[in-house]
Amino acid sequence: MNSIAIILGSISDKAVFDKCKVVFDEFGIKYELKIASAHRTPEKVREIVKNSEADVFIAIAGLAAALPGVIAAETTKPVIGVPVESKLGGLDSLLSIVQMPPGIPVASVGIDRGENAALLAIEILALKDEGLKVKLENYRKKMKEKIEKDNEEAKNW
Amino acid sequence: MNSIAIILGSISDKAVFDKCKVVFDEFGIKYELKIASAHRTPEKVREIVKNSEADVFIAIAGLAAALPGVIAAETTKPVIGVPVESKLGGLDSLLSIVQMPPGIPVASVGIDRGENAALLAIEILALKDEGLKVKLENYRKKMKEKIEKDNEEAKNW
Amino acid sequence: MNSIAIILGSISDKAVFDKCKVVFDEFGIKYELKIASAHRTPEKVREIVKNSEADVFIAIAGLAAALPGVIAAETTKPVIGVPVESKLGGLDSLLSIVQMPPGIPVASVGIDRGENAALLAIEILALKDEGLKVKLENYRKKMKEKIEKDNEEAKNW
Amino acid sequence: MNSIAIILGSISDKAVFDKCKVVFDEFGIKYELKIASAHRTPEKVREIVKNSEADVFIAIAGLAAALPGVIAAETTKPVIGVPVESKLGGLDSLLSIVQMPPGIPVASVGIDRGENAALLAIEILALKDEGLKVKLENYRKKMKEKIEKDNEEAKNW
Amino acid sequence: MNSIAIILGSISDKAVFDKCKVVFDEFGIKYELKIASAHRTPEKVREIVKNSEADVFIAIAGLAAALPGVIAAETTKPVIGVPVESKLGGLDSLLSIVQMPPGIPVASVGIDRGENAALLAIEILALKDEGLKVKLENYRKKMKEKIEKDNEEAKNW
Amino acid sequence: MNSIAIILGSISDKAVFDKCKVVFDEFGIKYELKIASAHRTPEKVREIVKNSEADVFIAIAGLAAALPGVIAAETTKPVIGVPVESKLGGLDSLLSIVQMPPGIPVASVGIDRGENAALLAIEILALKDEGLKVKLENYRKKMKEKIEKDNEEAKNW
Amino acid sequence: MNSIAIILGSISDKAVFDKCKVVFDEFGIKYELKIASAHRTPEKVREIVKNSEADVFIAIAGLAAALPGVIAAETTKPVIGVPVESKLGGLDSLLSIVQMPPGIPVASVGIDRGENAALLAIEILALKDEGLKVKLENYRKKMKEKIEKDNEEAKNW
Amino acid sequence: MNSIAIILGSISDKAVFDKCKVVFDEFGIKYELKIASAHRTPEKVREIVKNSEADVFIAIAGLAAALPGVIAAETTKPVIGVPVESKLGGLDSLLSIVQMPPGIPVASVGIDRGENAALLAIEILALKDEGLKVKLENYRKKMKEKIEKDNEEAKNW
Repeated sequence: MNSIAIILGSISDKAVFDKCKVVFDEFGIKYELKIASAHRTPEKVREIVKNSEADVFIAIAGLAAALPGVIAAETTKPVIGVPVESKLGGLDSLLSIVQMPPGIPVASVGIDRGENAALLAIEILALKDEGLKVKLENYRKKMKEKIEKDNEEAKNW
Repeated sequence: MNSIAIILGSISDKAVFDKCKVVFDEFGIKYELKIASAHRTPEKVREIVKNSEADVFIAIAGLAAALPGVIAAETTKPVIGVPVESKLGGLDSLLSIVQMPPGIPVASVGIDRGENAALLAIEILALKDEGLKVKLENYRKKMKEKIEKDNEEAKNW
Repeated sequence: MNSIAIILGSISDKAVFDKCKVVFDEFGIKYELKIASAHRTPEKVREIVKNSEADVFIAIAGLAAALPGVIAAETTKPVIGVPVESKLGGLDSLLSIVQMPPGIPVASVGIDRGENAALLAIEILALKDEGLKVKLENYRKKMKEKIEKDNEEAKNW
Repeated sequence: MNSIAIILGSISDKAVFDKCKVVFDEFGIKYELKIASAHRTPEKVREIVKNSEADVFIAIAGLAAALPGVIAAETTKPVIGVPVESKLGGLDSLLSIVQMPPGIPVASVGIDRGENAALLAIEILALKDEGLKVKLENYRKKMKEKIEKDNEEAKNW
Repeated sequence: MNSIAIILGSISDKAVFDKCKVVFDEFGIKYELKIASAHRTPEKVREIVKNSEADVFIAIAGLAAALPGVIAAETTKPVIGVPVESKLGGLDSLLSIVQMPPGIPVASVGIDRGENAALLAIEILALKDEGLKVKLENYRKKMKEKIEKDNEEAKNW
Repeated sequence: MNSIAIILGSISDKAVFDKCKVVFDEFGIKYELKIASAHRTPEKVREIVKNSEADVFIAIAGLAAALPGVIAAETTKPVIGVPVESKLGGLDSLLSIVQMPPGIPVASVGIDRGENAALLAIEILALKDEGLKVKLENYRKKMKEKIEKDNEEAKNW
Repeated sequence: MNSIAIILGSISDKAVFDKCKVVFDEFGIKYELKIASAHRTPEKVREIVKNSEADVFIAIAGLAAALPGVIAAETTKPVIGVPVESKLGGLDSLLSIVQMPPGIPVASVGIDRGENAALLAIEILALKDEGLKVKLENYRKKMKEKIEKDNEEAKNW
Repeated sequence: MNSIAIILGSISDKAVFDKCKVVFDEFGIKYELKIASAHRTPEKVREIVKNSEADVFIAIAGLAAALPGVIAAETTKPVIGVPVESKLGGLDSLLSIVQMPPGIPVASVGIDRGENAALLAIEILALKDEGLKVKLENYRKKMKEKIEKDNEEAKNW
């Protein structure tokens, strides 16, 4: 059983998914991956959501990015939306995802921020998985070490 | 049978609907009116679209206004979207409605422009109803006369 | 007789027109194509509109994109506007097209969305052409199959 | 003969016109005033422009404000556009007016800046009217004195 | 023990908190409420985060709304950010919250959407609390009934 | 004596000036060209304006483009501002130029629209030069012919 | 001798100045206050800057807010700019102030943030005035206490 | 002892730092350089600020650029923020930096304007260092000469 379902609105969103994948692979977390469009295959989206046993949904979409909201409409599981930049610097995707009406929340991360969607999902899963929590802390430690190393490197600038 | 279906995402969009109503009443056009939300009652939206025999759909919605796109996903009839101003001057609603991905068109009118949604719907219906075409031309004539009258009034400014 | 008239504000809008063309060719729909500018050849625009027997107009324009509105001012046929990206990510074209004043509607599709303009036009024509309606449904079916195929492909990511 | 023609897209733009009027009255400049809409009475706009002997046109309009560009398309006289705030803080009107394509210039002033449109028109007329030039310099002198007076008043803050 | 910690950047954000409160009260969920500013009392923010046993943090802040990100920097628990409208329609708050750099996620909801922050937090808690899940489904049911009632009411418009 | 003075805020604005140059050369109009910055050589800007006998000033500048307004502050001759795109798609330059306070007008053309600045200047000069008026009309005629030719070419698309 | 010079572009910017005044009065800092416009009284602005012995300039201005940059062009003292909201939510003022070209810096604070301009000026003065530094620390302490008090008050919400 | 501390939120901000470096090297000013992130190494940021004896801090950061504000929260020394362009043309970074709440000022310069941050810092230091003041004036003189040279070059265009 996968605890995470990732849905892409289009195959063209792959680059943002890849950032997710790197994180999930590093954490050893399995996920199911689907391509399904809120506008072109809406019934497929619903079917995926209804059949999924995932704890958290990640929806990656651009333009009038209805996908995260449409998923949120079909589940009471947390839904994370990732706006993809395509037109207007991604402002269209961002507003389409984050400005949800009262009652149906979507958790938006930043434009093209696939890695943060994955990390947010892991933070949620970690609430009931102590092992993940430790991994998250290690991940942050490594980030800190990376920046320390960058800081050292900057001494030569 | 009503040739027009109007769907509001929320009862709070009434003021924009009222602009539709004035136009449809003036043209003597019957419409069915529904309140149904892409996010809160998605299955209701689908049910309305599937059961409707309307030729044209008008969807009025604000914020992350997924409603027009979600309707368009369920029908090959023309769907007109009306972005409602609520946050960010309505830029969020506008982009959520107009920036549809390739394959599923929505016809967006301007922010809060309920009257233009109605007129656009009538222009579409008029393609197979000569009587409506005449009424449209009369409507335009009256607009012109109104502006001529305004022009006269402006002589006293 | 062509049921669609496509007007480009400038030869530089060809790439957006090409997206229209692909769709119309696929549906076997004839269209008349004109290049005429609301600002540089306004009388030509009017002449085209007045002489056209098209049921639907598609106007493709960038910057202060007055063309769709100017066409709409001369006809009560449905006018579809396609904002072309050139400056400010296309926000100027979009607002110039979609924010029409009350009384003269334009149906705006998304920035550079020539294909959706064509599909919207076909949806309108299909209201009195059952054959087109079937083709539209087939088109959607193919889109769904394409996404299903993408979904399969994603299994290898 | 009036050297200035002022055209309002709608009677609702009166407040911006009033700022023009104050300036023209102060300078003793006659103007013709018309209400005519690029979208609702396009032939009227053309008729006004064709029949006018004005040296400068001022066009005041909101939303998808095509009026200044449409006037500029019909004359080689200078056209000044005044974007009126109505939706989106006037950004729609501003971009619709200022972002003219190459070849047909419009001189845009700021949002709701009727007084500056009048002053710009007077600066243009003053190129062939020494008396106006003197008045312009006096006008600026009075502005300076007004600010000096404000500066004195501020000593009591 | 409270499973939710709500932190307001300023007492002026109360109206947005009130929307949270209504939801948490309806669900019978306890929360700790703090006012602490990322810029004015940063050590207090850290102290709250370090000492809290909350599973989820909700941070409500306006302008250059650093609070959610600063909290996220101190914990691997999920952090929900609520941008508050004050200047620029809330665009500043939204971008300050949602555009987090890679590695430290914040879950942004829409501008002033306190109720959605609460619901998102509950969706997260419900992953390990079957009772909450049922309540969420009932909540949605009530929302649907409310819209159905609105739909009935609209018959009289 | 040159009737036009063109001032560039920076040598990096050359590409926009070049569009001016093409037009002025085509019309056989002499201009003086200066590079002077409102922020780096303000006294030079004033000196140029004070010593110039130009009828019209064209100021080309990017970013916080104060140059057109600073010139307008020193003369009652018409000042045309050309916003140059550098950051934010040129929105910063545009707003810095067009949003002048009451009393000191600047005539803004579109972003990077050097050719339109030149044409607007010529329209102003043509008010007292019948020969220029004829040239303007010929210029428009050629534009129309160019579009007609484009229209022919499009038949092969 | 005053170490701070405050210049307002217009008497209408008083409300933002008042926020400055409250801070300077609380710190017992004298300032000179002037109203002078970069566009309407440019020579006055230069005269003020040239004659001032202030260590820091604060310039408060709206719209195409050239004032801070124009002051910075005449001095190598630090210049703080305060964008005033009037149109477009203050985005025009902000960009006109902050987007200075390379070589002439302006220190921009937030829209309408007169109090922060004063505090930034005091931070600069405090670099050579130990007493001010202590006062600044006390000021921050009071802010913290105020928030602590707010935090207490929030317990009753 | 270094009078300037420069902190980069990420090694990817190097290009903007390089503009700082050029200026500081030209002025012979020593600075300490650190890479530390408000979100990834917050305690490091605090440690740097607490231990630094710098008179002025320069913080360079992109996206939800909390770094300048977080530094300002820990010191009463002047903090200069440099928004780095990465998404949305840098509008996110700019608003995250400049829109600070009342009480904690940050001095924002323009997007990617590292050189101006350095110059602003030098202007502040020059208040107690006559030698720097002279260098600043020489620097401006050289800028003027550069523009004069550009002006000469333009004669050949």
